[in-house]
Amino acid sequence: MAVGVKVMPPLGAVAGVRAGTAAAGIRKAGRRDLVVIQCEPGTTAAAVFTQSHFAAAPVIVAKAHWRQTEPRALIINTGFANAATGEPGLDDARACCAAVARALGCRPEEVLPFSTGVIGERLPADAVIAGIPAAVAAASEDGWTDAASGIMTTDTVPKGAFRETLVEGRRVRIVGIAKGSGMIHPNMATMLAFVATDVEAARPILQAALAQAVKTTFNAISVDGDTSTNDALVVLATGRSGARLASAEGPAFAQFCAALEQVCAELAQMIVRDGEGATKFVRVEVTGGQSDDEARAVADTIATSPLVKTALFASDPNWGRILMAVGRAPIALKDPDRVVVSLNGVRVFRQGMVDPDYREEMGQKALAGEDIAVAVDLGQGPGRATVHTCDFSYDYVRINGSYRT
Amino acid sequence: MAVGVKVMPPLGAVAGVRAGTAAAGIRKAGRRDLVVIQCEPGTTAAAVFTQSHFAAAPVIVAKAHWRQTEPRALIINTGFANAATGEPGLDDARACCAAVARALGCRPEEVLPFSTGVIGERLPADAVIAGIPAAVAAASEDGWTDAASGIMTTDTVPKGAFRETLVEGRRVRIVGIAKGSGMIHPNMATMLAFVATDVEAARPILQAALAQAVKTTFNAISVDGDTSTNDALVVLATGRSGARLASAEGPAFAQFCAALEQVCAELAQMIVRDGEGATKFVRVEVTGGQSDDEARAVADTIATSPLVKTALFASDPNWGRILMAVGRAPIALKDPDRVVVSLNGVRVFRQGMVDPDYREEMGQKALAGEDIAVAVDLGQGPGRATVHTCDFSYDYVRINGSYRT
Repeated sequence: MAVGVKVMPPLGAVAGVRAGTAAAGIRKAGRRDLVVIQCEPGTTAAAVFTQSHFAAAPVIVAKAHWRQTEPRALIINTGFANAATGEPGLDDARACCAAVARALGCRPEEVLPFSTGVIGERLPADAVIAGIPAAVAAASEDGWTDAASGIMTTDTVPKGAFRETLVEGRRVRIVGIAKGSGMIHPNMATMLAFVATDVEAARPILQAALAQAVKTTFNAISVDGDTSTNDALVVLATGRSGARLASAEGPAFAQFCAALEQVCAELAQMIVRDGEGATKFVRVEVTGGQSDDEARAVADTIATSPLVKTALFASDPNWGRILMAVGRAPIALKDPDRVVVSLNGVRVFRQGMVDPDYREEMGQKALAGEDIAVAVDLGQGPGRATVHTCDFSYDYVRINGSYRT
Repeated sequence: MAVGVKVMPPLGAVAGVRAGTAAAGIRKAGRRDLVVIQCEPGTTAAAVFTQSHFAAAPVIVAKAHWRQTEPRALIINTGFANAATGEPGLDDARACCAAVARALGCRPEEVLPFSTGVIGERLPADAVIAGIPAAVAAASEDGWTDAASGIMTTDTVPKGAFRETLVEGRRVRIVGIAKGSGMIHPNMATMLAFVATDVEAARPILQAALAQAVKTTFNAISVDGDTSTNDALVVLATGRSGARLASAEGPAFAQFCAALEQVCAELAQMIVRDGEGATKFVRVEVTGGQSDDEARAVADTIATSPLVKTALFASDPNWGRILMAVGRAPIALKDPDRVVVSLNGVRVFRQGMVDPDYREEMGQKALAGEDIAVAVDLGQGPGRATVHTCDFSYDYVRINGSYRT
């Protein structure tokens, strides 16, 4: 069960984007497994995709289509990831796009496909295609809540976020949904996220906003350090609010970026809280790096250390393991004696040894709750980075160490 | 329990080196916890130490002493790692060296200290010092088997290896002992290994042999990707065989290196087999890299992937996870379609998709045993690397995710 996940907030409508969900029987009968998101002409799209050497067929097709033109629709299926499926997999992904294009009267290149599920097996494209009319017919500006459920695989909760902000005096809305409970799940690969906004922005400006938002959110979470073949995140901007981002700088851009980052942060943190087997939600905050990159390298080493993560599972204030992780981080740490380590605000280590005021009971109390902050001040400079992760539990092994069913 | 560990072989004597073990009551009464290894004047020493930014006090002192002169003795204690103990920790390590020096009539700089155990607590130097006479008195050229037990912490089996080889027609012996069951154990930090040989070799030549042996052995194993504050490996060469390594090249050097590498490989693999919670011994063999380094980067990514390791625990031929790991490896993979993946000789993936002759039952059969070979041919060049690791089990979480006792 997810760590301290609140119920998904109400997801407001964004003018010009409609989501429709259907049960197409792609892998299991009767469950929502197909989502079609339609957007009006004039919508622009920013996107980021997995950097895996083995990008799945839908990722390859979506990237190619997105580079050619602005999209009119996204099609998302669960059940099969259509990854490691070779040339036939590419044909299947293209066939799904063509079917959506026929249903909507647009060109196939205006459709971006996304898949999540079992790796290495053919996508039953016929079932997907047969389900498209129902998903198209169900389309509604209020369809986001259903869509959040429709893209789930092994997620235990649907994930969505909504924000309103003012851009040049006009109200702008941002809605987003996401799925994922490991960076990759055993077979049910993938982190997918879809965001829509009614701001008006040319693609390069929207892409700049997305790049900025992703850096501190989706690219700063880790469940197990593993990344998937299918990861993708798309932002659609319809322009229907009347508010326009004229450039990738200035106060209007900053205002929009802040709201987009909040939506992305909320979605990304929901994924960590729903991490496989997670019992703790952990914020790793590293300050004092010579650069932000250096701080980030240390944060990543802590956040992916099995020994740190199992200690957090045990609510064990085993600061020696955090020190061990800092010690092996790939940075040039000039003066280790300046490093200070704190757990939920309790200082445990400074000047090369345990803090003389620290008592084990203080650490135990600090780690008793579900939300834990591990703070490391490297004391070398102004660089800082924050990464969110979860602990490593028996359930992680159970979920990932059971034979596939 | 260790995976398929044979009983430790008989450990032969090496002329000029004597090991003595004592129960000094350092942390627990009645167990062997102190080892003193003495060597005769003229012995040379090669060594490698942890690269952690938080090297433990004994590592700092041992490195400094070793840089000054050749050693006459090593002192190894378990119970406390004397890591993260600041200036007092350095004083404790130096006090132990001074006590050994007094007992043996040598200089303190001729003693190298090593510790393993709890991080962050002061070493009870008085107890260590009080135990030294007994460890010195017990010294024997046949003392290696006792010493292998004397350096254990959470190891479930003692670890030792022995080889004889011919160097320029003379018989040369190499004996070694090691401890470690994670790259670092929760509190019982550390991998330690001590090797002795009766070859004659100047330090630079011996160091060259050690560097070569370590690369494919101790530096090519992973239990959990975490490394310790106390890791150290020392090779002592007494010269008593009459065989001399005159240079760091040529057939005599190669012959000695091969035997040293075998001893190190045996010790390193014993550590993996005794890895925390291990139920599988896994050989990850990557070929076809553009360079050995590239192959090694891929092997490391596979060997440290929690998703791969939990699948191996389940004996699940989940090749999608191996592909995922190759996919996220930090290399430039020019042509992913050339990648071939095999499990214990069964080809599962080639040309971007599952091998058409592969059936799930074949994979299940391949993974049923305790020893598993994961082979990845990148198909890009002549580079190759092999890494040994173990799986990730419930017991790993139990051992590391229980509150410290």
